[in-house]
Amino acid sequence: MSLLTVGSVAFDALETPFGKTDKIIGGAATYITLSASYFTSENNLVAVVGDDFPQSMIDILKDHGVNTEGLEIRQGEKTFFWSGKYHHDMNTRDTVEVQLNVMGSFDPVIPDAYQNCEFLMLGNTAPSIQKQVIERLTNRPKLIMLDTMNFWMDSAWDDLLEVLKLVDVVTINDEEARQLSGESALVKAAAKIGAMGPKTVIIKKGEHGALLFHGDHVFFAPALPLEEVFDPTGAGDTFAGGFIGYLASTGDVSFNNMKRGIIYGSAMASFCVEKFGAERLFNLSKQEINDRVMQFVSLSAFELQ
Amino acid sequence: MSLLTVGSVAFDALETPFGKTDKIIGGAATYITLSASYFTSENNLVAVVGDDFPQSMIDILKDHGVNTEGLEIRQGEKTFFWSGKYHHDMNTRDTVEVQLNVMGSFDPVIPDAYQNCEFLMLGNTAPSIQKQVIERLTNRPKLIMLDTMNFWMDSAWDDLLEVLKLVDVVTINDEEARQLSGESALVKAAAKIGAMGPKTVIIKKGEHGALLFHGDHVFFAPALPLEEVFDPTGAGDTFAGGFIGYLASTGDVSFNNMKRGIIYGSAMASFCVEKFGAERLFNLSKQEINDRVMQFVSLSAFELQ
Repeated sequence: MSLLTVGSVAFDALETPFGKTDKIIGGAATYITLSASYFTSENNLVAVVGDDFPQSMIDILKDHGVNTEGLEIRQGEKTFFWSGKYHHDMNTRDTVEVQLNVMGSFDPVIPDAYQNCEFLMLGNTAPSIQKQVIERLTNRPKLIMLDTMNFWMDSAWDDLLEVLKLVDVVTINDEEARQLSGESALVKAAAKIGAMGPKTVIIKKGEHGALLFHGDHVFFAPALPLEEVFDPTGAGDTFAGGFIGYLASTGDVSFNNMKRGIIYGSAMASFCVEKFGAERLFNLSKQEINDRVMQFVSLSAFELQ
Repeated sequence: MSLLTVGSVAFDALETPFGKTDKIIGGAATYITLSASYFTSENNLVAVVGDDFPQSMIDILKDHGVNTEGLEIRQGEKTFFWSGKYHHDMNTRDTVEVQLNVMGSFDPVIPDAYQNCEFLMLGNTAPSIQKQVIERLTNRPKLIMLDTMNFWMDSAWDDLLEVLKLVDVVTINDEEARQLSGESALVKAAAKIGAMGPKTVIIKKGEHGALLFHGDHVFFAPALPLEEVFDPTGAGDTFAGGFIGYLASTGDVSFNNMKRGIIYGSAMASFCVEKFGAERLFNLSKQEINDRVMQFVSLSAFELQ
């Protein structure tokens, strides 16, 4: 089934203990669509960039089967830019610089060809924009998933609560889940967030894995213990893209299938962190992905006699 | 098969965000033997206490089938005392007071009836004492497991390296694994620690679960997401006791059986944190333990189609 992803396509400049980049391609929607492209061929993007955005990168998206009809290229303006520096433990980072540029006036236009998409992924942007996307769709998708972050809890609380009422799945990291719910235990946090709207709550714990909550059901997937984590940028978006891409490819939104989605998403995220930016997502083979998924099976499978 | 546990039996005074205790029963060997008692009936203890240690507590150990012949009660001396205060997140704590008392001159005597034990659990004490225990056994046990902590890395590095050469399994938390190995990635840390002696390395990550490394094999067990964590004291020892108690009950030290041991240990630890001190371990039923283990199955099981 078809997937629509709305979110940022951007330039990032990154510094980790392993090195430093100049402007490279980043943005939530870049990671999401690239990751999802390994699962679904109906992969539609709505985003905005400036005229400084390289055609070569748009071609990479196209080569991955991403429909870029909804990628607005605004003449005379610049692409969203973020730069960040990771601390030694790679779990925390400081934002060095943000230039909103075109994202400051992002007005997501949904091409006619994208209407009737069955799966909608709202990458991390202003909650008011996320809500606008839902309102601009003629028919409600089968599943709407939303990613957000603490910045919007601090700056757009009411808007965030509004859009949360409209979605099926929310992905959020553990600290943000605690902030949003006011609960420190993640089981309680997930229950409170679920009561805000999304029936399914995914709490991302980075190197400590991810929890999937749906009603009384809970599932946990570990992160793969890796020898090297080169750059965590985009891991959460890559995870979300693998998850919803897998759901879209199967058309199955049952809890059991979401568990598989979490495993595929975790496998994709484990690739993402192996190189700077989105580079590792450019040329993966089906075999590599399947081998990685089998590592997750081996990591967490046990039999009681 | 029979299990011998050597370690501290002590008084603890605890403060968590949920409350505060006067002196209650604590000590690594207390948690280990109580936890193991739910799996093995041949449960032998070597420890030392002062004459202030209550008979009622010794009776609780005996009621759990723990052989206390090796529990030395030193007249005119006081029991080891530790008091600690947990921070709000329950993941970190400060030591408020330590009175070594009888532990300052602990000289572990192995009763004849304990010779020929097949499983040996060396609870966290000075590495020189742990080594002495091994030397005082007539026959090397089938499996020797050792727990240690950062304190000994700071104060008894050479002794620790000596005893590590002699053991089969080490349990250690993630930060300690990093300190011991000088590696920040846990995969690399486990490999380096394995090269120091123990073929099996268990890295405890508290609320984030536990990793089992053996050669090229790695297994991960999550911690159960709990609504309330009341007091984490003893959770690591309870985990170790469940693990080695399960191994001793089955006599099977294969990697697949160790995976089951990790699950049983994690289940026991999830009970431990529900009440202050060791209280939750006093009266568990087989049914409660089996139900808890099934929660782990449900938490981590998935099928790829």
